[in-house]
Amino acid sequence: MDDTFHVFDTTLRDGGQREGISYSATDKLAVARLLDEVGVGFIEGGWPGALPTDTEFFSRAHQELELKHAQLVAFGSTRRANTKVQDDPQVAALLAARTPVVCLVAKSDVRHVTDALRTTFEENLAMVRDTVAYLVGEGRRVFVDCEHFFDGYAHDRDYGVRVLEAAFGAGADVGVLCDTNGGMLPMGVGRVVSEVIARTGFRVGMHAQDDTACAVANTLAAVEAGATHVQGTANGYGERAGNADLFAIIGGLVTKMDRQVVPAECLPELVRVSHAIAEIANIAPDTHQPYVGASAFAHKAGLHASAIKVAPELYNHMEPAAVGNDMRILVTEMAGRASIELKARELGIDLTGQPEAVGRVVNRVKELEASGSSFEAADASFELLVRSELEGDDAPLFFRLESYRVLAEQQESGSVVSEATVRVTVGDERVIATAEGNGPVSALDRALRQALTMFYPSLADLELADYKVRILDGRHGTDAVTRVLIDTTDHKNEWTTVGVHENVIEASCRALIDAIEYGVRRAQAVAVG
Amino acid sequence: MDDTFHVFDTTLRDGGQREGISYSATDKLAVARLLDEVGVGFIEGGWPGALPTDTEFFSRAHQELELKHAQLVAFGSTRRANTKVQDDPQVAALLAARTPVVCLVAKSDVRHVTDALRTTFEENLAMVRDTVAYLVGEGRRVFVDCEHFFDGYAHDRDYGVRVLEAAFGAGADVGVLCDTNGGMLPMGVGRVVSEVIARTGFRVGMHAQDDTACAVANTLAAVEAGATHVQGTANGYGERAGNADLFAIIGGLVTKMDRQVVPAECLPELVRVSHAIAEIANIAPDTHQPYVGASAFAHKAGLHASAIKVAPELYNHMEPAAVGNDMRILVTEMAGRASIELKARELGIDLTGQPEAVGRVVNRVKELEASGSSFEAADASFELLVRSELEGDDAPLFFRLESYRVLAEQQESGSVVSEATVRVTVGDERVIATAEGNGPVSALDRALRQALTMFYPSLADLELADYKVRILDGRHGTDAVTRVLIDTTDHKNEWTTVGVHENVIEASCRALIDAIEYGVRRAQAVAVG
Repeated sequence: MDDTFHVFDTTLRDGGQREGISYSATDKLAVARLLDEVGVGFIEGGWPGALPTDTEFFSRAHQELELKHAQLVAFGSTRRANTKVQDDPQVAALLAARTPVVCLVAKSDVRHVTDALRTTFEENLAMVRDTVAYLVGEGRRVFVDCEHFFDGYAHDRDYGVRVLEAAFGAGADVGVLCDTNGGMLPMGVGRVVSEVIARTGFRVGMHAQDDTACAVANTLAAVEAGATHVQGTANGYGERAGNADLFAIIGGLVTKMDRQVVPAECLPELVRVSHAIAEIANIAPDTHQPYVGASAFAHKAGLHASAIKVAPELYNHMEPAAVGNDMRILVTEMAGRASIELKARELGIDLTGQPEAVGRVVNRVKELEASGSSFEAADASFELLVRSELEGDDAPLFFRLESYRVLAEQQESGSVVSEATVRVTVGDERVIATAEGNGPVSALDRALRQALTMFYPSLADLELADYKVRILDGRHGTDAVTRVLIDTTDHKNEWTTVGVHENVIEASCRALIDAIEYGVRRAQAVAVG
Repeated sequence: MDDTFHVFDTTLRDGGQREGISYSATDKLAVARLLDEVGVGFIEGGWPGALPTDTEFFSRAHQELELKHAQLVAFGSTRRANTKVQDDPQVAALLAARTPVVCLVAKSDVRHVTDALRTTFEENLAMVRDTVAYLVGEGRRVFVDCEHFFDGYAHDRDYGVRVLEAAFGAGADVGVLCDTNGGMLPMGVGRVVSEVIARTGFRVGMHAQDDTACAVANTLAAVEAGATHVQGTANGYGERAGNADLFAIIGGLVTKMDRQVVPAECLPELVRVSHAIAEIANIAPDTHQPYVGASAFAHKAGLHASAIKVAPELYNHMEPAAVGNDMRILVTEMAGRASIELKARELGIDLTGQPEAVGRVVNRVKELEASGSSFEAADASFELLVRSELEGDDAPLFFRLESYRVLAEQQESGSVVSEATVRVTVGDERVIATAEGNGPVSALDRALRQALTMFYPSLADLELADYKVRILDGRHGTDAVTRVLIDTTDHKNEWTTVGVHENVIEASCRALIDAIEYGVRRAQAVAVG
């Protein structure tokens, strides 16, 4: 992309302020590669010198990171008050990061200059001027984040502009107006951005926080008012209510405002990259996230589901595939027969002309969901249910679990062991197997597969990919009904199954049994097909 | 509140479309009471006749629901094409709900009239006219939701306005412009709302969906353009990316746009009501939700934490207490000594003048968080850690768990039992106790408390309030490190403790031990105090 518009990512710097996030340097390298794949122009990697992980990240990035689209940015602060910029170790660490671009944070609200920085207005301007000039002299391109710009502007319309003048006078390329406390609304942002551009003619950027739930709208309003540089983070991660979600900013700019701010081939990577970064950040993806969430194009209402058959484009604000997403039809209590038929078709089962089977499936779904199951997330369990209703008495019985016993023991030595014993029958044969695991569910999974692999060799390839536990009634703690979702992979595909019971072990066991039956059916279908 | 501005809640109708939500009639009654406590003017309870739960809700509401602020609204559709409105059973069900207000959905996009409704433009207008007139004649106040209004307006600027004219001509009070597919941005919403008001002079409302992450901003933009009726849902629950979050709309209108749209005494209820509705909906509260999230005013960066000591108002976009929230300082790897001191002070421990103790706490926190603990959510475990570092060798040893064994067994009968045996020492005494539970953790909790209650009678009052399991590395399923958070209550206070281990049982056990020690310390402190 050319330089006329900047998509500037700060997932690794400001996004790391989110409660619960703590990246290793290796994580940061992986996130940077993913961000590059969505075609952002700049990746702010962290604050070298201030945080050891960030120093390590920049040092390893030189060896290990090859970026196709993005330039790496080091973040830092203007020099300390009353010192020479050449003597400031923090500024030296910025140079040592050897990035083409440096983003400097500068105070632009007089109250922060006085109360937080404890220096004079003139010294703060000198700090901006000196640090920008020094870095530019060392060959760096410099962007300046004007912290608390909007609050400062409401208090005093001139000081923030003087900070911008100091920065641009010393050679800065972009002045980023930051709504650091996140209290702005789009109308106000648009007005201030227009005024600042009219007064200065400078290149202006926008950094928004989501404290009023308007971060994305504030960013788009700034662009409409003339900003040509936008900052955001993957999935909106950030302090408090978070930063502006970069994926929604890109989605809005490209699909609603017709600005091609990332290379065309990158847009369909949004969903994959969003989910991969969530995994690295160790945060469950927000299923309801605009554009990229698993539910972003999911339709539940019976009303909609029947109309969607006619004209899907009338019910989606855009083509889901453009950002790598899919339309989904949800199986739920509220769903009627039309939804069930559509959902089955999605899974490759044609229920047309089988009204009785559809009726049986609808009833079973209602009954099971009333007792706590959720088929919305567990496609594999739903498919097994549909197939068993279709097959009726002809349904194959792959195995029967007669009984099991799971033990977890902490010995006096302090070490903890888990062991499971299962008794299963396959046809006329009865097998008992015992296995150990790192926890009760892993022991149970291993024992089951140990007993069954001689009959179904494909089971040897299965692996538990994820395991989620949900207490269904929040009020009674461990006595409440427990829902377990298990993701299983055969290293080509992944499927999700559900189990519900008051005992977490039994709920897990039910989800495991579905996972294994689905794996066996899948392997047989592949062998036949 | 007077009638000049409407805060219209649709949590129980449109919000119920969210994937995963399924309310009982009792749930709905509880949610309605909570919404009334935040002072909304209208509560749309559901679609009587179409959904059995909703019919039951309206019928019970007459007996059981006493609302202080809100009026109840029944939602329904205009009459079917080519039938008399008196003969339409869906319209009859609307009357049978006996609400003072009815909200009717009407098609206002020509493409939906043709493709989804399959009728003529004139017949659709007649359907609006007849249904509104009939309901008004029966003494109802009628609002009309103009479905797909914005998409329709972009396609044909006149038809939606004709729908509004038909509705107002027949006696409707509000025409709600719906961004049903959620593709709008605030600039476009403001323009259309202004134009429609200028053309018609009608009272206009806004219904926004969050598909562009702009639902709240779109709603506020509509108000700025002259809308005097806003629709939203608690926590933004709704189909796909959700509806506009009513709590952020109220927060924005009151604290940023200076419109007193709910009674002043209701605003501080926002946090409590938001969390209570999340609990009923059985959805984990979004900790990063604007205004009401647990992290909405949480500060993590060491940089901020030290400056916050000086002037907290410079770092929050509003006073957190105004919406019933608190500022929090987070204990994290990134936090320095200042954060730890502030956090300890929050918990009533003064660390001033004890630099060595602070250093030891900082090191322990870093070490434990590196191995997967998270003290951000587990205040009680953090307090125990601080106290143990302060007390050093003088720390009381309340009990020691020597070993335990947990068993979960499915018998051939199908019934599942869990049993735990613990061996603990208290001073010179050694106790062995065995207990059963509905699951392994509940059995362990009971066995521990059974062994210890004779020494610490206050333990009899404790109850596990919630139990959360998190797999820390998403890639290896049940083999990965597991973090358990346990909420415990003594029916006056609640506290959270954390345990981490590769085995979920051992992780649970560690969190239980902290929960019990904290409970004992708390009871002793109360007895002494």
